[in-house]
Amino acid sequence: MHLAFMKTYVSVDCVVFGFNKNQLYTLLVQRNSLGSRGKDLKLPGSLIYQPEDADEAAYRVLNELTGIRKMTLRQFKSFTSPKRTSDTEDVNWLEFAYHDKIERLITVAYISLCKITRKLNVVSKYKTVEWCPIDHLPKMPFDHNQIVEESLKEVRNWVETEPVILFELLPTKFTATELRLLYEAIYNRKYDARNFHKKMVQMEYILPLDEYQENVKHRAARYYKFDRVTYNKRKIGI
Amino acid sequence: MHLAFMKTYVSVDCVVFGFNKNQLYTLLVQRNSLGSRGKDLKLPGSLIYQPEDADEAAYRVLNELTGIRKMTLRQFKSFTSPKRTSDTEDVNWLEFAYHDKIERLITVAYISLCKITRKLNVVSKYKTVEWCPIDHLPKMPFDHNQIVEESLKEVRNWVETEPVILFELLPTKFTATELRLLYEAIYNRKYDARNFHKKMVQMEYILPLDEYQENVKHRAARYYKFDRVTYNKRKIGI
Repeated sequence: MHLAFMKTYVSVDCVVFGFNKNQLYTLLVQRNSLGSRGKDLKLPGSLIYQPEDADEAAYRVLNELTGIRKMTLRQFKSFTSPKRTSDTEDVNWLEFAYHDKIERLITVAYISLCKITRKLNVVSKYKTVEWCPIDHLPKMPFDHNQIVEESLKEVRNWVETEPVILFELLPTKFTATELRLLYEAIYNRKYDARNFHKKMVQMEYILPLDEYQENVKHRAARYYKFDRVTYNKRKIGI
Repeated sequence: MHLAFMKTYVSVDCVVFGFNKNQLYTLLVQRNSLGSRGKDLKLPGSLIYQPEDADEAAYRVLNELTGIRKMTLRQFKSFTSPKRTSDTEDVNWLEFAYHDKIERLITVAYISLCKITRKLNVVSKYKTVEWCPIDHLPKMPFDHNQIVEESLKEVRNWVETEPVILFELLPTKFTATELRLLYEAIYNRKYDARNFHKKMVQMEYILPLDEYQENVKHRAARYYKFDRVTYNKRKIGI
């Protein structure tokens, strides 16, 4: 019968993006595994506790790792396939970790952003916390690889409607090249430097500073900063 | 203990938008209630069946109502608050309908779009299916009012990244005024007709036709149509 109850748990999983040089990274944790199986790196996550909603669970997970109380967070999709619990190794680990039988596991996936220079806490339930380049992710449990893949598409939508999030990935002062490399990493394409610069100048919320790079071999580039006041005044819609 | 298992069910709920004249509507169903409580109109939805994922459940719900096999669908948010099951009337109805005890109910909310002229099926589990103007929604069970409110914000984001969805709400041939009124309904603001027209002309995927309104008292307006080929070629990103 279609509606027979399956012991269903609901979790959150977080894709935390960081950016360095020309590469996007995501934060992975290494779980305390049952044995050595080479699949121990995964997205940070947790079951949702009884008194929590999904947002609260995601804030809790990220607060544990970064110490930041309320990171920018976007719930982007719930992953609900019954096949999520088809790998017995994954289910065994979960039942071992949570001391309960689990028949169905649905996860609410979140995106967050973090400066890659941020100090991270290795909380006790994990062996390590590390930044992993998204082009070289290990094979992860459940559908975590698919979650990262889909989250990158969502980041593109997010940048189009709220470009402010770009600046959570950059240092406070950044060069035009740094911003271009970030766009290239997100959209997975190259931009002509000169055309990109023209478009950047049209973004009124990016202000040129009277500061330039120091101690560089090439011509010192100008620094820019993000201006939130101008940004908040920009027009939405057509 | 935080992790004590609660008998958790997961449902889908669908906000189906329609548009007529100058008003957005959403599709509501009237459930077969336990008694008369004045809260019987709700969003169309269903628990997720065992072999389904959430998308499949949402397609099933909408297919039942509209006969359309795969409507445009966007999963936009899961509503997970433990307070969703704090109203005993709501929980009683649910347990009556599904013959099971339910301690926690999480729902994955979807947005869809439908021409308001579409013939609808009154499936047996409901008394009625009707279009309700979103400015005059009744008080609905669970957090369905909140879901509609948040879905409207999501539609705005969706229009910005995929304006194609506008044309699922309009007739195949439409006037500039009809498109403007649709924008006004979605963004809940007025647009100056002349400025709006200028902007519309810049949308290359809207083609003027050599056809005009007939039998109107005012000056007959030109018809336009959406051109998918041009639309698909438009540039994404900056």
